[in-house]
Amino acid sequence: MTIKLSPANESIGLASHIAIEESGLEYELNVIDMKNSEQKSDSYLKINPKARVPSLIVDNIVLTETPAILVYIAQIATDSNLALPNYPMQFAQIQAFNCYLCSTVHVAHAHKHRGNRWVNDEAALAALKANVPTTMAACFDSLEAQYVKGPWVFGDTFSICDPYLFAISSWFESDGVNIDEYPILNAHRQDMMNRASVIKVLDAIST
Amino acid sequence: MTIKLSPANESIGLASHIAIEESGLEYELNVIDMKNSEQKSDSYLKINPKARVPSLIVDNIVLTETPAILVYIAQIATDSNLALPNYPMQFAQIQAFNCYLCSTVHVAHAHKHRGNRWVNDEAALAALKANVPTTMAACFDSLEAQYVKGPWVFGDTFSICDPYLFAISSWFESDGVNIDEYPILNAHRQDMMNRASVIKVLDAIST
Repeated sequence: MTIKLSPANESIGLASHIAIEESGLEYELNVIDMKNSEQKSDSYLKINPKARVPSLIVDNIVLTETPAILVYIAQIATDSNLALPNYPMQFAQIQAFNCYLCSTVHVAHAHKHRGNRWVNDEAALAALKANVPTTMAACFDSLEAQYVKGPWVFGDTFSICDPYLFAISSWFESDGVNIDEYPILNAHRQDMMNRASVIKVLDAIST
Repeated sequence: MTIKLSPANESIGLASHIAIEESGLEYELNVIDMKNSEQKSDSYLKINPKARVPSLIVDNIVLTETPAILVYIAQIATDSNLALPNYPMQFAQIQAFNCYLCSTVHVAHAHKHRGNRWVNDEAALAALKANVPTTMAACFDSLEAQYVKGPWVFGDTFSICDPYLFAISSWFESDGVNIDEYPILNAHRQDMMNRASVIKVLDAIST
């Protein structure tokens, strides 16, 4: 089995990248240069017509969407500490958390620089952008108060939710929300920064 | 095990409602009256602080987010035709499809009536609403050309993706997109309308 991951600098691909590093699986890396719109290049559109990162290519089969990639990595890395629980409700809660991140939190963030997914009007784009600190603060409030137990998302057990939360926590400052007001999320980010996988991944995509 | 599903009229809860009906599981129904904002009532916020539908309560444990609910139903209904494939990549493709619906297609639709999730400015809200036929057409283009094989999403095998697609296909007309231009999606909707589960569910939430 050959596995190739295409993340990008400063993108949600960071979550899948950390997860596959945690998994112990062998993989190749093809970092997409989003600053030069490589995700819209002919060669990348053949991989993912949605023009988004990340994508995971496994023996020529392309898999997209972060929650799906995270679950796949955990399912095939059965010897890793990411192996999924067999109890369906625990697995479902992992899914629910990741779906909240992809469909609500990431979407709130995307209204800052990707508002043209939904509207072209300049004044509307500016209004969407201006509101991002408010909507992201509401998302982080919800994560802090209701969802992240600490030290990891589900308490003492590290899971595929943790790299995903970390990728999103990296947006605190740029989205205008003060992480110091979120002790659980702040500690989570610090704990992630100290993991060998995260140090290695951040180094790989910054060079 | 007691299972209670809270969908709502004309909401994405339709997907989970059809899936649980297809599963053969016993369940109770608690239809939320979104026209009167019941999802923001004190009693419902205790169930789901995100004030969204659907929610599934299983022995007092609350599960939210449509993709997570769909997988959970399929996992516990092992005798049903919704039982999930054991092959991780097949399961991952189901996940990827459902994630695309929740994080891209449903989000595009939500900019029509739920734009205040991201902005309060009246002109911006109007601009977002006006663009929905364009963004939804792009989503349906993608589903028709790249993702839905027909007759079901994954070809001959009915899966949890089909009720989810059906719930979203019900927005064609109200979102200003002509379903006649999408022969695969149109046939899928007709096939769904003829299923006993769908007939029963549509009757249950309309009364």
